[in-house]
This record gives sequence, C-alpha cells and structure tokens, in this order.
Amino acid sequence: MSARAGIVVTGTEVLTGRVQDRNGPWLADRLLELGVELAHITICGDRPEDIEAQLRFLAGEGVDLIVTSGGLGPTADDMTVAVVARFCGRELVLDNVLEDKIAAIIERLMARFPNVDAEAMRASNRKQALVPAGAHIIDPVGTAPGVVVPGTPTVVVLPGPPRELQPMWPSALETPAVQEAIAGRTTYRQEMVRMFGLPESGLAETLRDAEKDVDGFERLEITTCLRRGELEVVTRYEPDAAEVYTNLMSLLRERHGHDMFSEDGTTVDEQVARLLTGRRIATAESCTAGLVAARLTDLAGSSAYVAGGVVAYANAAKTDLLGVDPALLDAHGAVSEPVAQAMADGALRRFGADTAVATTGIAGPGGGSEDKPVGTVCFCVKRADGPTVVRTMRLPGNRADVRERSTTVAMHLLRRTLAGSPV
Amino acid sequence: MSARAGIVVTGTEVLTGRVQDRNGPWLADRLLELGVELAHITICGDRPEDIEAQLRFLAGEGVDLIVTSGGLGPTADDMTVAVVARFCGRELVLDNVLEDKIAAIIERLMARFPNVDAEAMRASNRKQALVPAGAHIIDPVGTAPGVVVPGTPTVVVLPGPPRELQPMWPSALETPAVQEAIAGRTTYRQEMVRMFGLPESGLAETLRDAEKDVDGFERLEITTCLRRGELEVVTRYEPDAAEVYTNLMSLLRERHGHDMFSEDGTTVDEQVARLLTGRRIATAESCTAGLVAARLTDLAGSSAYVAGGVVAYANAAKTDLLGVDPALLDAHGAVSEPVAQAMADGALRRFGADTAVATTGIAGPGGGSEDKPVGTVCFCVKRADGPTVVRTMRLPGNRADVRERSTTVAMHLLRRTLAGSPV
Repeated sequence: MSARAGIVVTGTEVLTGRVQDRNGPWLADRLLELGVELAHITICGDRPEDIEAQLRFLAGEGVDLIVTSGGLGPTADDMTVAVVARFCGRELVLDNVLEDKIAAIIERLMARFPNVDAEAMRASNRKQALVPAGAHIIDPVGTAPGVVVPGTPTVVVLPGPPRELQPMWPSALETPAVQEAIAGRTTYRQEMVRMFGLPESGLAETLRDAEKDVDGFERLEITTCLRRGELEVVTRYEPDAAEVYTNLMSLLRERHGHDMFSEDGTTVDEQVARLLTGRRIATAESCTAGLVAARLTDLAGSSAYVAGGVVAYANAAKTDLLGVDPALLDAHGAVSEPVAQAMADGALRRFGADTAVATTGIAGPGGGSEDKPVGTVCFCVKRADGPTVVRTMRLPGNRADVRERSTTVAMHLLRRTLAGSPV
Repeated sequence: MSARAGIVVTGTEVLTGRVQDRNGPWLADRLLELGVELAHITICGDRPEDIEAQLRFLAGEGVDLIVTSGGLGPTADDMTVAVVARFCGRELVLDNVLEDKIAAIIERLMARFPNVDAEAMRASNRKQALVPAGAHIIDPVGTAPGVVVPGTPTVVVLPGPPRELQPMWPSALETPAVQEAIAGRTTYRQEMVRMFGLPESGLAETLRDAEKDVDGFERLEITTCLRRGELEVVTRYEPDAAEVYTNLMSLLRERHGHDMFSEDGTTVDEQVARLLTGRRIATAESCTAGLVAARLTDLAGSSAYVAGGVVAYANAAKTDLLGVDPALLDAHGAVSEPVAQAMADGALRRFGADTAVATTGIAGPGGGSEDKPVGTVCFCVKRADGPTVVRTMRLPGNRADVRERSTTVAMHLLRRTLAGSPV
C-alpha cells in the first residue's frame, strides 16, 4: 500500500518567477516525513482554467491527496476555492460563523489603518467566507481560511503566504478526510551522506558496482545531487531494508572514506563550528572577499570563536593590514602559496587568533595568465598549535562559481586540518 | 495568435525541496521576454512515468513548446532523454561525433582527478551521447548535451545545473523547430522599475489611484515583488500602449521619486560600481561580517575601486584593526552610531581609502536587549571629501534576513551618499 500526493502552487507572481515558491518545498518535506509519496508539484498563474487543468491532471494520476497553496485573497483574481468547489462537484455556500470570525479579524487589523473604509473591506472579505458545501474549514491565521474537501482525491486548500500556510497545515492534517486519504502511507527511513572531492561520475561507478554486489540494492531509493561543490547522497528505504543500507554504506566507506565527511546530515559549516569550540579564528581573504568570514558567522553563536578577518583585495591591503612582505608579492605574485601563507600568518598575529584561513586567487573574468589561469586559487590554513596546510587548486566556472567554490574548499580545508585528518 | 509553453523541471532533489529550482523562474523570464505565454511549470522526481505524465499533460493542454530541465547526468537515475524520445515516438541513437566531444571534455576534467578510472568514466558518459533520432543536438557546456525534438509540441531538453542550462538556451532558441513552435508569440515590451524605502502597501495605493486616473491602465500587466528589501515593479505591454506606461511612470515619479532608484533595469550594485569609478572604498563590518565586501566585489572589475575591508567581529578586532577607542565601546556599546563612525574612520585610515562603509548590529537570535533589540543595526558611510552619513535601523526577520537586509541598506546608503542625493 502507499499514499500519493500532489501539490498545486498558484499565483502569477510565482509562475513568472518574481516570487520564489517556498510552499512547494515546505509541503514536500512534510509529506515525506509522513511517508506520503509526492509525485508532482505543479505551478500555474491565477487563471481558473489552468488551476482546474492541474487538479484534473493530478486526479488522473491517481493521487490520494492534493494540497493547493495561494489564491485565497479578497481580490477578484483569487479564485482557488471556487475552482476547487467546481472540480469537486460541490456548491459554494456562505458560512455565517466563518464570516463573523473574518469580520472580527478585519476589525482588529483596521485599528492600524484608520483611513481604510472598514465596510468596503468587510464586503470584499465576505468572499473569503464562501466555502464548498460539506468542506471542513481551517481557521484563518491571516484573514484567509483554508478548506479540506473530502473525496477521491481529498483536496486541501491553503493560503499562499508561508507564515499563514505553515501553522494551518497541522489542523488540515488532523481532519478525518486527510487522515483517510493518507492511510496507506509507508514509513520510510531517510539518510543523507555528504562527500567532498569526488566527481559525480566516480560515485556513479560505485553505485553501478553496488547494484551487482549489494544484495537487495533495488530496495534503496537513492538520489544524488551536486551542490556547492559537494555531493549529497540521499537514500530512502523501508525499515526492514536497513541491512541493505548498512551494506551499501560499508562499500561507500571502503571506496570513498576520505571524501565522505558527513553521515548524519550535518553540514561542513556545523562540523567546522564544532571543531572551533574553544578556539579563535581569523580570516585573510583576497578573491573570496569576505565570503569565508560571512560563512563562518552564518551560524548563531559564532562570535564565541570568530575574532574577525581582513579582506585584503588590493596588494597594499595585504602588506598594510596583514604584514605581507612586499618582496614576497614581487617574487611570487599575489596569487601564490607563499603569499597565502603570509596572509594566514598576518591574520593569526593581528587578531591574536590560534587558527587562520587565507585565500588568494583569480576569480575572473580578467586577470588570468597561462601560468595562473582564471580559477587558480591558493589556500592556507594555519593552526598556531599545529600544522600549516597550503593548497593550490583550479576551480571551474564563472566569477561567482569560483568565489563560492573557493569558500567551500576553504571550509573543507579547515575541517580536515582541525580534525587532524589527512588533507 | 499566441504561443504557449510549459516547463518540466525534473529531479528528486528539486521535488523534495533539498535543492531550490532556479531553472523554472529563469526560463519563465526568458519565455515572457519573447512574448511566449507560460501556462504551467511542473516539477517531478526522476521517475520516468512521472516525467512522461507531465509531458502528456502539457501536450494535452495544447502547449506549442515544452522545455525540460534536469536528468541528463551519467547516472542511471537520469532518464529524461530516454523518456522524451519515447514520448515523441523516436528511437534513441548513439551519436558518434557527440560521443567524441564528450570524451574530450571528460579527458580535460580527468586531469583534476588523477585517481578516477578514465575508461570507466568514459563508459558512463557514453549514455549521454544517446539522442532521439532526428533531434537537434545542443553542444554541452558541462558534459551533458541538450536536444531539441521537433514536433507538436516541440520539446527542448536541457541539463539541470543553471550554469549549463543558461548558456545553452540561446542555441536551443535558434533552432528552426523552436522558432516554428513559438511563431505565434506576441511582442511585448517589458520594463522594470526598482524602489527602496517604500512599503508594498504604499505602492498598492498608488496603483489603485492609477487604475482610475491613467487612461488605458488595463492595458498594462503589472506585477510587483518585494525582493531583498527592494520593491520591483515589472510592467508588460504591447508596443502601442507605450503612452499608457509613460503616464503611469509620471505618476510613480511624482509620488515616489525619492524611493525610485532604477528605471532602466540597473541594480543598486551596478549603480554603486559606477559611482565608485575613480574612488577607493574600504569596509568595516561587524554584523554583516564580510557580506558588504563580498557584494562590492561581486562585479568583475571591482579591484579598480575596492581596497579591502576589516571584519571586526570581536570588540578587540574593532580596537586593534580599526583603531576604535575602547572608551567609545564602553560608553556606547559596540552597536552604536559613534562606534559605526569610528569603524568607518578606521577603514578610511587603514586602507588609505576615500570612501568607507561600516556596519555594526545585532543579527540575533541572541544578544538583543530592550534598548537594542535583535535587528538593530547602525550604519555609517563616510567620504573623505564630503559628508558623513550615520543611520540606525531596526530590520525585521531572522539572523540571515537581518544580515542580508543590512547589506542591502549599506548599498543604498552608499548609493545615495555618493550620488549626493538626500539620504
């Protein structure tokens, strides 16, 4: 048995990409947690015929549950409830209790906008109290109520603003109609492994071997994804396939142990934060120009171990702020391992830190040479109490890619150096 | 006449929300620019039957063009080309020229991964040289080629990574099959205006007035969107409605001239870059911790005017690196206008700069007080040859929001100060 669902996201601003849809991914997460299989997310504008076409499509695909977001506002272009009512073959009826509830909310809001005509606003919000006959009403968090329309499939209609949709979802989930629709859900386990330094095709090769060598491999649903230079491998399986996953992991560890840095969902940022506990780090950045410092301070509580950093973009800044010897710059050029090392030294000294990370490279599009093409980046990680690690890499992509990838490389060099792993 | 299109985004990592889809919105923009009506975006995982169901749905809705993204990798779970071939009733054939091209690309990549078996890798990439018979091939930017399959509808198949998809789109667009599919498109003009400092409801009020006062207002298709603290107003219209747009613009300029900073599509980043020509800027950041420096150096050529910056996260860094008087920190606290000013002074002096921008604030979640709640941020922009501007703001949202919004505020303070506009 299983339960399948589809999500319909409506709104011209979302379809045209002016506003990023946050409801689809959020609802997808909730459904996956429940063990409901998500088959499709569809996005359309405010046109009733397009919304209805998507509902028909999902019903035709045999989903048990459809969740819609958006199109519940008071304005005339918001028509989701009316479309869903027609699709489900139910009339729209005015719910008097709901109308009073909305009126009370509107009155509270009015207090902050004394210039708006309250009567006109109440009238336009009356539309929001029209619900499909026999539907279950989800109380509004903003002014727009949601509805659950029982049937095959059951349809849950929620408002577009995430701060309204999210708190309304648990109430929708509790309704008998939704519980019945998802009764066939399967409990899955989901595990994530993160790797750094392995190309996607290297992993593909291992997975092809696993298909032959790991018994029951077909019971694992594996998706791989390259993100910010890291490979993420997500595996879903039913609980009784746990041993198959264990065997796959043994193979992955054997082949790619060095590159596999996370088996518990933690990010490199979280691991570096943990490794920096009780330490004091400073950054010295040229090509990444603040991105490493910004990333180290992304996490709350980072002031406990981040002292600060220098963005030494110009050569003069490297000498004046970090004490890099001008002779070193002359002899090796700004993008060189000796300069990266001198920058890290300067960061340690100037900030009284015990850990430093330095980057200097050519992000492009200009500035490359035959010797040092665009994408050449030198890194140095220095521990006052331990080893110094220096690396030069050639990173692919455009200016933004090189800067972002360099930041990720810096985080991984930090992680390995602090953990005492081979770099 | 018109031309309608649909977009199919594939990939389990996108469907499950682990990776944010950037291709749907980007392709939506391109289609809108062309005057092609976008009806639906659909997202599914890597399951062939789900991809095929979406293709059938869109074809059934009568679209002239389908663009797919994703599922072109070397791994077995990437099946888009095979599914599209079957859907279009065409066989998959191995393209030898393409296979050699991919092999050459792989060999170049191999240089960076000396430990991977090149022959195994070539074999796994051979799959990417299988194309539907009679399809037009779009040369790869990464390792995955795209294809254009002529028909009703014509199907364009592109890879998932945006940095591959985006440069491949123009080649796909040039193919006769795509040109024929979109022949019925309507020419629209599209203009964008950017504002900063105006709440969305203020703009809504003006647009309601424009509905009454601007003749032919209904001929303009206006979408507004709040992004990174800026309001973007995009207007589409057929060329003979140009005068209506001119009249709307007059009204917007009259009411919101101070807040409207871009009428030609330029971003605040581009405007600041232009204003910094011939100047030399340094940053002094606490709560933004490098984000302002990173943003100033986002654009190519920024080394001409960015000297560098200090991330002064700890108080000791503020005194040691920027020369902020410890007495000032004691008297006013780190988050205060005098400290922001002293940080900007220090940046001017230490970097020999003529322009400086400083931020110090409470990004949260901890560290707030009744006086200075989370979101309190002090800014200072200083010109060696002109005025000093100091501001304190309370920015909404979580830690990431406050840091990002602070960065945008800093850019706008810079823009206004450098342009000599009222701040």
